[in-house]
This record gives sequence, structure tokens and C-alpha cells, in this order.
Amino acid sequence: MRISELSSRSGVSVTTIKYYLREGLLPPGRQTAATQAEYDDQHLRRLRLIRALTGVRGLSVSTTREVLDALAEYTGDTHRLLGLALGSIRVGEVPSGDASQAAEVQALVEELHWDVHASAPARTTLAETLASLRALGVPLDWRTLLPYARLAERTAALDLDQLEGLDDPLEAAERALLLTVLLEPALMALRRMAQENESARRHTS
Amino acid sequence: MRISELSSRSGVSVTTIKYYLREGLLPPGRQTAATQAEYDDQHLRRLRLIRALTGVRGLSVSTTREVLDALAEYTGDTHRLLGLALGSIRVGEVPSGDASQAAEVQALVEELHWDVHASAPARTTLAETLASLRALGVPLDWRTLLPYARLAERTAALDLDQLEGLDDPLEAAERALLLTVLLEPALMALRRMAQENESARRHTS
Repeated sequence: MRISELSSRSGVSVTTIKYYLREGLLPPGRQTAATQAEYDDQHLRRLRLIRALTGVRGLSVSTTREVLDALAEYTGDTHRLLGLALGSIRVGEVPSGDASQAAEVQALVEELHWDVHASAPARTTLAETLASLRALGVPLDWRTLLPYARLAERTAALDLDQLEGLDDPLEAAERALLLTVLLEPALMALRRMAQENESARRHTS
Repeated sequence: MRISELSSRSGVSVTTIKYYLREGLLPPGRQTAATQAEYDDQHLRRLRLIRALTGVRGLSVSTTREVLDALAEYTGDTHRLLGLALGSIRVGEVPSGDASQAAEVQALVEELHWDVHASAPARTTLAETLASLRALGVPLDWRTLLPYARLAERTAALDLDQLEGLDDPLEAAERALLLTVLLEPALMALRRMAQENESARRHTS
């Protein structure tokens, strides 16, 4: 397809597509004339992925390129690929606060027997959230988080189920990124709705 | 306490406190001299709540005032108060997309027998996320979300457990706000870590 069709099918303007091409986020098309190139479904998929990373999650262009480069490098090592896809993005807005709770997060991970890299950004998010909540007078330690973590285990199993049957590991990694990044607001919305329901159940007759 | 102590105990600058006082987010202190007022623990708690709403979640000052006014108005009606505290904040960055999936969200809510207000912002978030994921080529309908919703029910029960034993309904509403808003990054971090662990379990020997 021409760049104009790539634009209309992806919903990304031609100007922006050209910018991604210049910045190396999108591989060049097959040159068919001096000023014309042909693009395919791979380009379309890649473009959607870039939009998910930059648009929805607000990653910078350079961080997005790092994530995409890493995805390309580790094709074939599914776990490594998924780990990268899942672990490379920081989780939302991180509340400020000191991160001295690293040891506490480690205690939680050990109690759960989780296999989680020591430098996973999610550890820092967790530590800083605990610190913030305490600063605001909400007493919460890693033991309070334990039942939440057990439910997170089951959520993660559902997530990984969505990736089964995708033979192309690069496609699986892309899907993992999309699910992790885009499903977050949906899961938080479900929690809000469930809270409202639970509150009605407990507090109205 | 004086405004300087209120500042040092809350970590909010005197300039910012004075701004909140002018904007009516923080009730005035007890005037002790022409240029001096006395503040108490209520002020401190309110200030922490304002910081959580504006700082961590990035609500505007006017939205924050609406939320706080509503909290004050409904003291005594615990469910209404919690509903307000939990429902009044939109969930994170909402991906753009049309919201024609409202009927689908309704189908999910009915299947679950959830008691959720028709205008709950979380419904829109959910509908728009489904639309976005489909636009990105990830086939997902409300039935896929059903097991996620069942886990959200259990998460919500844990959330509400944290509020038990708080006799002051205003305190319960404040705690609900803090837990909902501040626990989100922690829950998403737990999901990331659990995904990494689950991926290791499935894909490495």
C-alpha cells in the first residue's frame, strides 16, 4: 500500500508517519519510484504499536525506539521478549517518596516465591507507593499487599492466556505490550465499578 | 499549630497553603491575631487529601474542590459518600475512541449483577478501552473481561475491608479516595511483577 493508505488505515497522519520513518521507529518501505514506497501489514502493525506506546502511555519517541529495538533483538527467546515487553515500561505516574522500602518489596517477593528481576521498575513503583501512603497516614505494609498480590497472580495468568497460540514471538511480545499498557485503564475501571457494587452491598439495605 | 508548622508537617509550602486557603480548598484557621491563625489536625488531614488528589492524580484545583464539597455534603450517607469518593475521579489516561460499546459494558454489568450507576465514569473508560484495543487488532469483548471482573470483585472486597472500623464517615471517604487513587500504581506494579513471574514459569525450563 502507499503511504496515504497506510495513513488512512492506521489513523496516523502522513506527516507523523514520515517523522517516524526519519526517526527510525518505522522501517522504510520498499522503494518503487524515486519518491514512492510501498508499505505492508507489518508496517501497519508496527505503526499501531508505536501509537499505543507514545499516544496512550505517553512514552517519548526515544524510549519507544529502545523498546522496539529490544523487541527485535530478542526474537526467539519468548520469556526474555515478554519480560522486556512487560517490564520496560514504568507504571503510570509514580508518587514521589523515598525508596527505602526496597527491602520490604523483597520480603513480599520472597513470601510469594516470585521470579522477578531485581531491577524491575515495578519494584520501585511498589516501594514508593507504600512510602506515599504512609506519609498520608494510611498504615499499609507488605503483608496488607499479600492478598492483592495473590489476585494479581491470577490476573497475570489471564494475561498470559491471551498470548497463547500466537506462534510469532514478536507478535506475542507486541500483544503483551498492548495488553499490559492498554488493559490497565480497563482493569482500574473494573475495580472502581466493583467497589461501587461492594459498597452498595455492604452499606445499603 | 501555626501555618509554618502545618507546612513542615504536611510537606506543603506556606505559599501553596495560602493559595489553597484563598481558593477555598482548605477551611480557614481560627484567627488568633490580625495576621495569625491557628490550624489543627483536621487541616493537616485535609491538606494531605488535597495533595493526593492534585499531586498524585493530577486533578485540577476546581475538580478537587468539587470532590471535597461533595464529600462534606453527604456526611452520614456512607454508601453515597463512598460512591462519590470512588466514582468521582476518572481513571487515568483514557484512550480516545468512540463509546458505542456502552451496551457491551451494560451486558457485562448485568451478567455480573453489579449495582453500578448508569453514569459512572468507569463505564466510559471500559467502553473506550475495548474500542481502542479492537482498533489495534486485539480481539477482546466483554466475555473476555468477565474473569478479570471476577478478580476485580475480590480486589474491591479487600479495598472495602480497609475501610471497616473507621467510624467517622468523612474519614472513611477520605481513606477510600486515598486507597483508590494511590493504590492503583501499586496494583499495576503487582500485575507487572506477577506477569514476569508467570512468564518465567511458562517459558523457561
